[in-house]
Order: sequence, then C-alpha cells, then structure tokens
Amino acid sequence: MRLIVFFSNQVSEGMSVVAKEMAEQSLDAQIRLMQTGDRLQHLIYTQQLTRGLLDTIFDTADKARNLNASRMGATFLKECLPNQRALLYFMQPSTRTFLSFHSAASLLGMSCVHITSPGSSSEVKGESPLDSVQTFAMYNDLLVIRHPEADFAAKCVERLMQSEVSKHIISAGSGMEQHPTQGILDVYTLQREFSRKGGVDGRRVLIVGDLARGRAARAFIYLLALYQDVQIDLASPESMKITDDLREYLERRNVTFRESDFMDDFIGEADAIYMTRIQDEYDDKFPVGDVDYDLYSLSRDRLSMMKGNCSILHPLPRRKEIPVFVDRDPRSRYWEQVENGMWARVALIAHILNCDLRIRTA
Amino acid sequence: MRLIVFFSNQVSEGMSVVAKEMAEQSLDAQIRLMQTGDRLQHLIYTQQLTRGLLDTIFDTADKARNLNASRMGATFLKECLPNQRALLYFMQPSTRTFLSFHSAASLLGMSCVHITSPGSSSEVKGESPLDSVQTFAMYNDLLVIRHPEADFAAKCVERLMQSEVSKHIISAGSGMEQHPTQGILDVYTLQREFSRKGGVDGRRVLIVGDLARGRAARAFIYLLALYQDVQIDLASPESMKITDDLREYLERRNVTFRESDFMDDFIGEADAIYMTRIQDEYDDKFPVGDVDYDLYSLSRDRLSMMKGNCSILHPLPRRKEIPVFVDRDPRSRYWEQVENGMWARVALIAHILNCDLRIRTA
Amino acid sequence: MRLIVFFSNQVSEGMSVVAKEMAEQSLDAQIRLMQTGDRLQHLIYTQQLTRGLLDTIFDTADKARNLNASRMGATFLKECLPNQRALLYFMQPSTRTFLSFHSAASLLGMSCVHITSPGSSSEVKGESPLDSVQTFAMYNDLLVIRHPEADFAAKCVERLMQSEVSKHIISAGSGMEQHPTQGILDVYTLQREFSRKGGVDGRRVLIVGDLARGRAARAFIYLLALYQDVQIDLASPESMKITDDLREYLERRNVTFRESDFMDDFIGEADAIYMTRIQDEYDDKFPVGDVDYDLYSLSRDRLSMMKGNCSILHPLPRRKEIPVFVDRDPRSRYWEQVENGMWARVALIAHILNCDLRIRTA
Repeated sequence: MRLIVFFSNQVSEGMSVVAKEMAEQSLDAQIRLMQTGDRLQHLIYTQQLTRGLLDTIFDTADKARNLNASRMGATFLKECLPNQRALLYFMQPSTRTFLSFHSAASLLGMSCVHITSPGSSSEVKGESPLDSVQTFAMYNDLLVIRHPEADFAAKCVERLMQSEVSKHIISAGSGMEQHPTQGILDVYTLQREFSRKGGVDGRRVLIVGDLARGRAARAFIYLLALYQDVQIDLASPESMKITDDLREYLERRNVTFRESDFMDDFIGEADAIYMTRIQDEYDDKFPVGDVDYDLYSLSRDRLSMMKGNCSILHPLPRRKEIPVFVDRDPRSRYWEQVENGMWARVALIAHILNCDLRIRTA
Repeated sequence: MRLIVFFSNQVSEGMSVVAKEMAEQSLDAQIRLMQTGDRLQHLIYTQQLTRGLLDTIFDTADKARNLNASRMGATFLKECLPNQRALLYFMQPSTRTFLSFHSAASLLGMSCVHITSPGSSSEVKGESPLDSVQTFAMYNDLLVIRHPEADFAAKCVERLMQSEVSKHIISAGSGMEQHPTQGILDVYTLQREFSRKGGVDGRRVLIVGDLARGRAARAFIYLLALYQDVQIDLASPESMKITDDLREYLERRNVTFRESDFMDDFIGEADAIYMTRIQDEYDDKFPVGDVDYDLYSLSRDRLSMMKGNCSILHPLPRRKEIPVFVDRDPRSRYWEQVENGMWARVALIAHILNCDLRIRTA
Repeated sequence: MRLIVFFSNQVSEGMSVVAKEMAEQSLDAQIRLMQTGDRLQHLIYTQQLTRGLLDTIFDTADKARNLNASRMGATFLKECLPNQRALLYFMQPSTRTFLSFHSAASLLGMSCVHITSPGSSSEVKGESPLDSVQTFAMYNDLLVIRHPEADFAAKCVERLMQSEVSKHIISAGSGMEQHPTQGILDVYTLQREFSRKGGVDGRRVLIVGDLARGRAARAFIYLLALYQDVQIDLASPESMKITDDLREYLERRNVTFRESDFMDDFIGEADAIYMTRIQDEYDDKFPVGDVDYDLYSLSRDRLSMMKGNCSILHPLPRRKEIPVFVDRDPRSRYWEQVENGMWARVALIAHILNCDLRIRTA
C-alpha cells in the first residue's frame, strides 16, 4: 500500500497525538482515524468502504431519490443541511463529478462554492496548498477535492486533524489510484440493475480498456470484490493490465478473475460490461505503446454477441469505445449511471454530515 | 431559413420517432415539436415567439417585479421553483445575459451553476460537446446555452429529444443569428414605455448600426414585426444592411420599412431609437470595409433632432455610439432595459418551467 | 490624501448634484456622501470607520456567531436577507477575502455570484469597466469589489451615485492602500482576544514586515489609532517603512509609535504581534532592494522572547515569516483571525444592508 509513504516526511514537532499516530500507522489505522464508530468523517480511500456501508448508502440514495419526486419531499431534503456550506476544489478538469457533487450538495440545501483554478487563489502569492485548504475549511463544512497528486486529499485530512479543525473531506479523484465516489456510483448502478433479480452477488462482470491507469476501474474492481461470488473478467491491452497490488488484493479475497487481451473471449457470458476510456493523457508519464482501440470498443457485432439482459456501463467521458448509436440499445445504462452518481453522492454527503438516518426514516 | 440545414446530417439509425420527424421537417414543424400546447419546452428560435406569448410573458414579468417589491412577495417568488436547478453554459463572453439569467433563476428560488470554459470540463478528455450537454441535463432542469455556433443549441434540443431526457433549454445567443431573449426584453422595454400611451402598435422605430451581424437587432426586428402597423426605419452602412431573409420576412408580413445610410434621415420622426454596436469581432469572418462610426452614433446635435418623448434603447455593451453623457438624458432607457431583461427572463423561465400562472394569479 | 485626486477628471456635464459635490469636495465630504446618518451605504476607505462603528460591528459579529451555533439561530440568520443578491467582482487573486465574503453573504441568506476574470465578461467587446459595474448593480444589491487600481471602487460608487442606482459597494482591497475589511477583522481579533482583560485600549502592538506596500498593515494601523493609549511598534526594512501620510496621521492623533529595522527591539514588550508578508509582487513597480527575510520572521528563539500571553496575528497568506510549527504555539491566532473575518463581514454586510439591529436584538 504505497499510499501511506508520504506521512513519514510530514511529522513535525508540535503535531497532535492523533495525527502522529496516523502518520506512523498502517492504512487500516488511518482508516480508523478517519471515522467515528461506523460513520466516516472523511472519504479518501476506496478501502474505507465496506459492504455494509455500501448497502446503507444505497438505501439512503434510493430514499432521497424517491423523496425528491414530490415537492414536499424535495423540500424535506433541502431542509436537511440548510446551514452547511460545501466547497468544491477541483484542480483537474471534470464535468460529471463536479456537477454531481454540486447538485447533490444543493439537493440537501447546502450552499456551494467552487475553486477550479489555482490562479484565482492565494497560491499565486506563495501560499502553501495546505494553508489554502485549511482556509477553505475555516469557512466550509465539507471540502470536495479533486487533485492530480495521489496523496493530496489524504494530506489535507492530516492537516485538519493536526489543526483540530473538525470539518469533512471527500476525495473526488486523486492521482491515478483513488476515485472512491466513482466506485460507489458504479456499484450502485449494478445494485439497482440487479435488485429485482437477486442482487449483485454471484454476477459475472467484464471490465474492458485501460485497467492500469484508470482510477475509476480500480475503484470499481475494489468494490466488486466486496460482493459474494462475483466473477470478474478483465480485457485490456497487455500494457494496461491491472497492477500487482490489485491482483494481490483479488487473490487475497479469493475473487475469481480471468484476464485476456480480447474482450471477445468473455463478452458472451457477462451480466454487465464496464467499458473504459484509454487514458492517453497519462501517455507521457506512463507510456503504453501502440494500442488497437477497436479491440476495446463496442461494435454492432459485439452488441450481438452480448446477452440480451447484459448491462452496459461506462464511467464517462467516452470516446470511440462506445459509439453514440449504442445509447439507444436497451442494454445501455451509462446515462442512468450519471444520474445515479448524483444520488449516491447525496447519500454519501448525508452519511458524512450525519443526516442520513433522517432521510431513511422520512 | 437556412437554420435547419444541419439536421439532415444528423439522422442516425436508432433515433426516436420524434427526433427523426424533427430532423426531416420544416422550421414550423421543429417549433411545434419544441412546445406542448401553447407552452414552450425550449426557446431556441426567435421565430417560436408569437404576439400572444409575448403579451403573456410581459404580464408575468410585470407581476413578478411587483411581487418582488415586498418581502412577502419576494418570498413567494423564491418558493416558485425551490427544487429546480439551472445550469448556465456560456461559451461566449457575456456580462448582462449571464448575470440576468443567474439573477432570474435565483429570484425564482432555483439553484444555479455555471460553466464558462471548456477547459474546466471533460471536453479536454475528448468528450463530445453533446455528451457534455446531456450530462448537464442529467443534473439540471434548465440549461441556458450561449455558443458561437449557430446551430449548437438546436442540436442540444435534438439530442435531449433523442435521448428522451425531459429537460429544458433556452438559447442565450447562438452564432450571429439567434438571440431570442434579447428580443423579448427589447420589445418588453418598448411595451412598458408605451403602455400608458396606447402600446407598441403603430409606433415608428429607428434601428441604427450593425444590422447584418448583430443578432440582437435581428431578434428585435423579428419581434417588432409581430405588432400592428409598426413602421421600421433602418440606418446602417451599406455593408451592414439587414440580410435578405429578414427583408423577405418583413415584406411577407407587410411591414412598412425604410432603409438609409444616414440615421439623420429618420431621427426626427422616431418614437424609439434602437442603437447598436458595430460588431467588429466578426470582421475577420465577415469583413465590412471601412466604416465612419460617427455616422451611427448619438451626438448632442442628434439628441436635439430627436422628439422630446423618443426613447433611446441599446442592447449593450455600448462603445462610442452612445457617449456616457447621454445616460443623463431623460429619454435614455438602456439602463432600464438591463433591468427589464432580468424580469423578462424571470417570466420566460416561469413560462417554460410552468409556474407562470401561479405568479400571474398571486 | 491623494486618494481623491481622480475625481477632478471625472466631472462631466450631466452629472447629478450629489455626484458633483462629491467630486469637488474633500475626503471627509466624500465620506459623508457615502453614508446615511450613522449607516454606511458603501465601504471604500478605512477612514470611514469610527470607534463607535467598529464596536457596533463587533457586537453584531459576536451575536451572529452565537446565533449560528444553533440550528434555529442559523435559520434566523438565513432569513435576514433572503431576497438580496451579492456579486463578488474580484480582479485580483484572493482566497480568504473571496471565500469569507461568499460565506458571509450565504450565512445571511443572500444568493451570490462571482466574476473573477474580465475575459468572461463584456469587457472583451470594449465595454468600459464602469458600464460593467453599473450592469452588475442593476441585478444585485451588493457589489464586493477587489481591484488592482487604487481608485476603482471609489469610481464605481461615484458612477452609481451619478446614475441614481441605490445599491451598495464594499471594497475588498484596492491598489496598495485600501483594504478596510481586513482592518476590521484584524482589530476584531484583538478585541476578542483582550475582551476579558480590559479591551484593546492601552495595548502595545508590534507590526512586522512590509509596512510600505501592504494594504492590510495600513488598514490595521489606521484602525488601531482609533483606540485609547495604544502603543504601536513598527519593525521593517528601511525600504518598507510606513509612508509619510500614515506617519502624519499617527502624529496627528497623538499615537505613540516607535520604528526599528529589528523586531527584536520590541518583541519582548508586545501584547500582540502582527506579522506580514514581504509583498514582492510589487517589486517591479515599487522596488525595495535586497531584504534579509529572516529578520522579519518568527523563529523558536523569537517565540521564547515573546510574552507568554502575546497574541500572534497575520493577515495571511504567509510564507516563511511564520513557519508551520508556530501553528501549534498556543499564542497563535491567525487561523482564528480567518474565521473572525467571516463574522466581521457578516456584521458589515448586515450593517450596510440594514439588518444588523435585527441580529443584535434576536
């Protein structure tokens, strides 16, 4: 778990006991420090999520969505967190994640402000990013952070703990590894899909594309493994296979998984297919050689090879791996997935800010 | 009506019946698809507006403005759309249109988010603009779109219809041709001006400046022609005269209009003068040669040639065509026009999102 | 008082009586024009603030903060200005000031919109900045303006007065000279610190760093001088000493002050130390030569020279003048200062928009 390495350089003399412990301990210990009882105070690592927590979040999400269908219910939701403020700090471009957090916070009655460019903030005057984040936390109850650095959001949690600032942080994507809320919404989509047919347990899921550099695929695989008897098939170019830490994780949990360069090897058996984009924005830092994109794309031929009730997911944005004509295939679910993301985030925020019980019992 | 050409390239196999019809039919047919009964679901073309619809919108605007004058009335307005969300997608710079939509949505209790630069969205990862817009529509009830491409907003409506996403789109300016809400607020300003003196019917209106490249002037002329016995005088450089389609439109509606290179030919007879800016940002794409700007500007001499009760309008931003000292001429109305724009947009949003009757009968 | 020079070029023929008077008169007269009775209509100059006004604002700030601690009180605050709209126009980068105004407006129930780049507004089409600002004022009740030009915010007030637009402006920093809300929050921090120990009167305050180019330090010194028997020590490089106008001001008010190149001369006697950043972003326009930054920084040695109950303030952002380990020194107050800024601005907005009495008597 290389994610915790950074802490060892950060210990400074006056640090509080809590933070010192955090820096010296394992990921498991960090995770314990980030929650109070069963309630998350922050969500940074996909590893913080358990099957039980997912089930609760999905319940809340379904309930919030139903409430919002009526004017009275929508007003009830808006009165959940009327005096709380959220700040979205997005240092990487985003449409879906940004807007769905914005809408989710608004649905719960929070006011929302966003900072999307360091040029508009005091960092141009030499302020350290952690000072900026502590400043954000002085004005806001929840910070949603997307950042290219793998450990930035975790460092922010550490800073708040050291400074005894009791505010909350949710990672909206960190580096190439972590995107826990994407994982939640992806599994939520499966859960809704299979809810009347026995649930996610025992399903066979095919994941296609850039499995090495895509944090969405990583989060999805991690969470799928929390279900019983799930079988995972992985189709990707040799240079984009899942990383060793994820392979060890699947083995440790006794998850059955197969790997191939060809999605056609698995497509006919899949209950759900999770397509991903080749993340060539990382080509410079993480070169992968030439790739035949067509091998990892949906075509009419491949649509005809799929089961009649197979669900097609994609974290979006898509490029050619899902042509637009697939949108009208009755098996496509990636647009529902977009909307599910908003409700999953409503539920997550409600959990962390402790108003989820109120929603579930409304 | 060259505006519909683009549809013919867009028909793809799985398209729904509604959208296929839309693509194959005339502007009139498109307009019918964009409304339910008398109620607009989208506003893309100035041609969607009728005299009856304008009258209703102006009634709503007046009523909303009056309500807002009291604390109780303002609170009533804010409770009209408390659970609806608006997204402003502005791919061209704007101050007035952007802010007035933002304020209008806030006045009705909507929460509001804006995207003003493609760099902050997923388009940098290769997402198609239409995928981005469909994503916006998954999270929001109303999209307000300003875009340099003439047919972008219409394509967005088409996409939502194909995808059966029941959300609403208002164009806040498209290419050089369409700016329907500017037209509404301009006519609303005339209507308020003349309301105690018999209304807009029968008035003589002088329009000055860049009539070829200004979408505001186009929209204004189009809507003026919906009134009885309006007489329109047009003063512009030869190279910036109204385009043939607009001339044919005026002739078809039997509107009396005159054209000249010299505003002085008409200035003494005008009940209202609509000044416009020479839109030289289009010089590269649409060159017009040298222009003597002074010929299309207000001066003290010209002010003294005008009728004592002539109203001066301008869509703003202005440059030298209206010097600042004119602001204090009692005939100037362009700052009122700014405020009228906010109320006209309140009324339009209320119409499209179906809470206007509630406001008119409050 | 060179701040008023600009007015003399601005008088144009049609100007209203009020504005003409303003342009021709002294700073004192300007200040009178900017208030109604004891109530500020705008806050542009630190010189507008009196001891009595500060005391009232601090009372309101304390009361608002207490109210917000309960759900009912927070809801009461949000119902103070539910139908008012604020626009933040920030033409210089800012984190704290921007976010704290945004949060302050939200806490009072205002809706909030921000413009942080001229590229997204109509200025790219040649609109004058004053036309843009008047446009903002047509849609919003309060404009908060940060601008690099020293006299920009004052010019905006003048324009609104000339145009008889009854909206409000608060400067959030103008040029190198004015930053009145920073001064308020800094003195508010002192006042809270000393409130149980006899108040700010009679305290000895050491101010360190860039006293020539820092508008925060200027505002702080100006307001400190409103207190009885305050003693001010100033430690700065020779090239960054306070400017003559400020020195004359202190002498005129009979404030005891001492100056030195060495903070160590004063550090042991200080009841509070106000550290500032060397503002090297002004080096080009206002060169200061080489500076030994260590002389104007806190170190462990200097911490041990300070009184046990001395408060450490800093307007932030900081660089090396306060190392991060000082955050955990029990005398540090700069993070509390950040939060105090939000409440001070809540109180100021409430004063200007006339709902402060409602808060103080809640």
